[in-house]
Amino acid sequence: MRTVVWQSLSKEQQASVLERPAITEGANITAAVAEVIAQVRRDGDQALRELTAKFDKASPETIRVSEQEIEAASARLSENMKQALDQAYTNIAKFHKAQIPQPIKVETMPGVVCEQTTRPINTVGLYIPGGSAPLPSTVLMLGVPAQIAGCRKVVLCSPPPIADEILYVAKLCQIDEVYNVGGGQAIAAMAYGTESVAKVDKIFGPGNAYVTEAKRQVSNDFRGAAIDMPAGPSEVMVIADETADPDFIAADLLSQAEHGPDSQVVLVTPSPVLADQVTEAVKTQLSVLSRAATAEKALASSLVIISESMTQAISISNFYGPEHLIVQTRNPRELLPLLDNAGSIFLGSWSPESAGDYASGTNHVLPTYGYTRTYSSLGLADFSKRMTVQELSAEGLRGLAPTVVAMAEAEGLDAHKRAVTIRVEKLNQVES
Amino acid sequence: MRTVVWQSLSKEQQASVLERPAITEGANITAAVAEVIAQVRRDGDQALRELTAKFDKASPETIRVSEQEIEAASARLSENMKQALDQAYTNIAKFHKAQIPQPIKVETMPGVVCEQTTRPINTVGLYIPGGSAPLPSTVLMLGVPAQIAGCRKVVLCSPPPIADEILYVAKLCQIDEVYNVGGGQAIAAMAYGTESVAKVDKIFGPGNAYVTEAKRQVSNDFRGAAIDMPAGPSEVMVIADETADPDFIAADLLSQAEHGPDSQVVLVTPSPVLADQVTEAVKTQLSVLSRAATAEKALASSLVIISESMTQAISISNFYGPEHLIVQTRNPRELLPLLDNAGSIFLGSWSPESAGDYASGTNHVLPTYGYTRTYSSLGLADFSKRMTVQELSAEGLRGLAPTVVAMAEAEGLDAHKRAVTIRVEKLNQVES
Repeated sequence: MRTVVWQSLSKEQQASVLERPAITEGANITAAVAEVIAQVRRDGDQALRELTAKFDKASPETIRVSEQEIEAASARLSENMKQALDQAYTNIAKFHKAQIPQPIKVETMPGVVCEQTTRPINTVGLYIPGGSAPLPSTVLMLGVPAQIAGCRKVVLCSPPPIADEILYVAKLCQIDEVYNVGGGQAIAAMAYGTESVAKVDKIFGPGNAYVTEAKRQVSNDFRGAAIDMPAGPSEVMVIADETADPDFIAADLLSQAEHGPDSQVVLVTPSPVLADQVTEAVKTQLSVLSRAATAEKALASSLVIISESMTQAISISNFYGPEHLIVQTRNPRELLPLLDNAGSIFLGSWSPESAGDYASGTNHVLPTYGYTRTYSSLGLADFSKRMTVQELSAEGLRGLAPTVVAMAEAEGLDAHKRAVTIRVEKLNQVES
Repeated sequence: MRTVVWQSLSKEQQASVLERPAITEGANITAAVAEVIAQVRRDGDQALRELTAKFDKASPETIRVSEQEIEAASARLSENMKQALDQAYTNIAKFHKAQIPQPIKVETMPGVVCEQTTRPINTVGLYIPGGSAPLPSTVLMLGVPAQIAGCRKVVLCSPPPIADEILYVAKLCQIDEVYNVGGGQAIAAMAYGTESVAKVDKIFGPGNAYVTEAKRQVSNDFRGAAIDMPAGPSEVMVIADETADPDFIAADLLSQAEHGPDSQVVLVTPSPVLADQVTEAVKTQLSVLSRAATAEKALASSLVIISESMTQAISISNFYGPEHLIVQTRNPRELLPLLDNAGSIFLGSWSPESAGDYASGTNHVLPTYGYTRTYSSLGLADFSKRMTVQELSAEGLRGLAPTVVAMAEAEGLDAHKRAVTIRVEKLNQVES
């Protein structure tokens, strides 16, 4: 880990040390993904079978996972694991249920009633990556809000073989259909539909560069599907003062670093003593980690920033806009109103990031790469859409008419004006 | 207007009559816009001056409109116009204030507190197109929610000369800076900043094909800016039964048709008699319109659909997903729970679209082109972002630990587990 003293850097150097590495997909990924999408649109299930054999070296009997297979997977799972997944499900459901919006109804003028109502997005597709270990937590983070929002059809794609943990959680979340399909071909299948895979309105979930590019491409086509948010490498920033426990901070930095060699890990502290203690603790803890090699690569580009003050530490964080922000200071809650541009904030010594990654209740799908300035932590709102409604009484229209008429005249929209005046004239006729 | 009987069409014909015309920008617009963006990034204000002279045939003294000019514009405006704009401002503000979200705080397990908090997007840029007539209503629809959300800096670009109505509303909405810049160069300036124009986090507003393409390009660059939503031609669908007034419906169809030759206008009714009456009334009313030529072009591709029943009319609407949906039936409110995929819904005879376009309180920036399936009516949420927060007590962490440990083990993330166990071990040490 590299240590810098913020005050000693020029403005340009400050921006440069916090600059995220450019994501350069390269034209070859773009073209390869476009080819996969075209193939799936053209050949449907047949393309999925061929691409699954090619990329996943797998030939599942059916594209759709049967109910029996899901039941069998659940039966194989240990009671301990089921209990953990059930508890996480319960907590995540509790927090997301609290996000159900109240309908809004306002009478802006006498007889002019304006409303906002929320509807679930009808069909959604969840993508769960494969890899060395299964990711049931991501199924929970996508499946629970889809279920609570009331989406009419929820489908899930994951490269075969799909782990028992994933199938068990899919059942918990009442996911309607699970498919043995991964990669860009899964995104294409859900965006356009095939004989076996349902077309969806919106696609959620993480993935590698091919999946990310496929999501970008299908979301740029209005016949394709909307997507959750732009993707980037995972990040954590820790703000700490001299009261923090360096072992806890080191453990938090490492749990981010083990995600991948491109993970972004930053500690900001006004205490040079703490900075040194954390650096030492990271070295010690690193030695016993199973994924030490990965973590070490991420740590090579990670940063310890010595700030002048806690106020400066906060403005550094607001400037960087981290996905995860851990605050381990004397009074973390007092700092909350000052914190901005963070995906999820973890307050105090007993709130490690891994609590939120798995089971406290908050969502672990968060904006990265500085998108925290404009994007939100994934929530119920992402599985819903807001529609407005208005209902004017005859008197309401009469009261509003002069305003609409004057504005329509200013904007030169004659028919807009007449849609109001023709009604008012009829009202006047009826009355006279 | 072309009339079709829904039942007499095949599935394919049904989909085809409601298919929206493809938006084909063409590679030349893409390249031209990319060149404009590159020029603005390279030459800053100098590029803006050159491009404004070239495209808008204007050479304003300063890029930023001065306070004095804004005051002078307000002084020139008639009292009648100011009153109309003030009334619209009041109504729109009332409806958008009602959208201020309550913070959420849930204890998901004893000692595990999860929260959702909302922050304004810091800096936003509003784009207001020029053209034959000024669009103060669009300034209201973007400026009011930006103001109520509490965005720290709000800027506005519009091609010079900027109309008095626009400057007056900019003052009402306390917009911080107004710039004499239009087109793709305005989008580039707000996305990347120049000497005079502030860089913003997110850009809102309608525009022509060049503006739309520029918004797409800057939103695909993480150093650029986020944007409000994808754009398409404006649309209205009317659902009506035999109790509706054909003159009112004709006026509503025409007020959509006058927007532009690519406006989408559709009437769905189970009453062939009403269908004929509306077709006649459209012809009659068309003759007196100032923008009859434009409306006529839009009507040439517009549609009257005779449905079998009201239930079928509703499912046609939900399938099409119109931007504006007007419901003129015996009991429009009873149909509301069945309606889906609409940007804004207008209930009953006295609720013309133009009420919502200008002044009832709802926002007139709405998803088009079928994006109603996944996108929302513009609102306060679009000028804000949701962050989550969590705070665990020592006991909270102890209670959650077994769940996190089991899941981290399943996912093979050792350091995630240790971030929890290292804390529990310290707790146990302290206690023993």
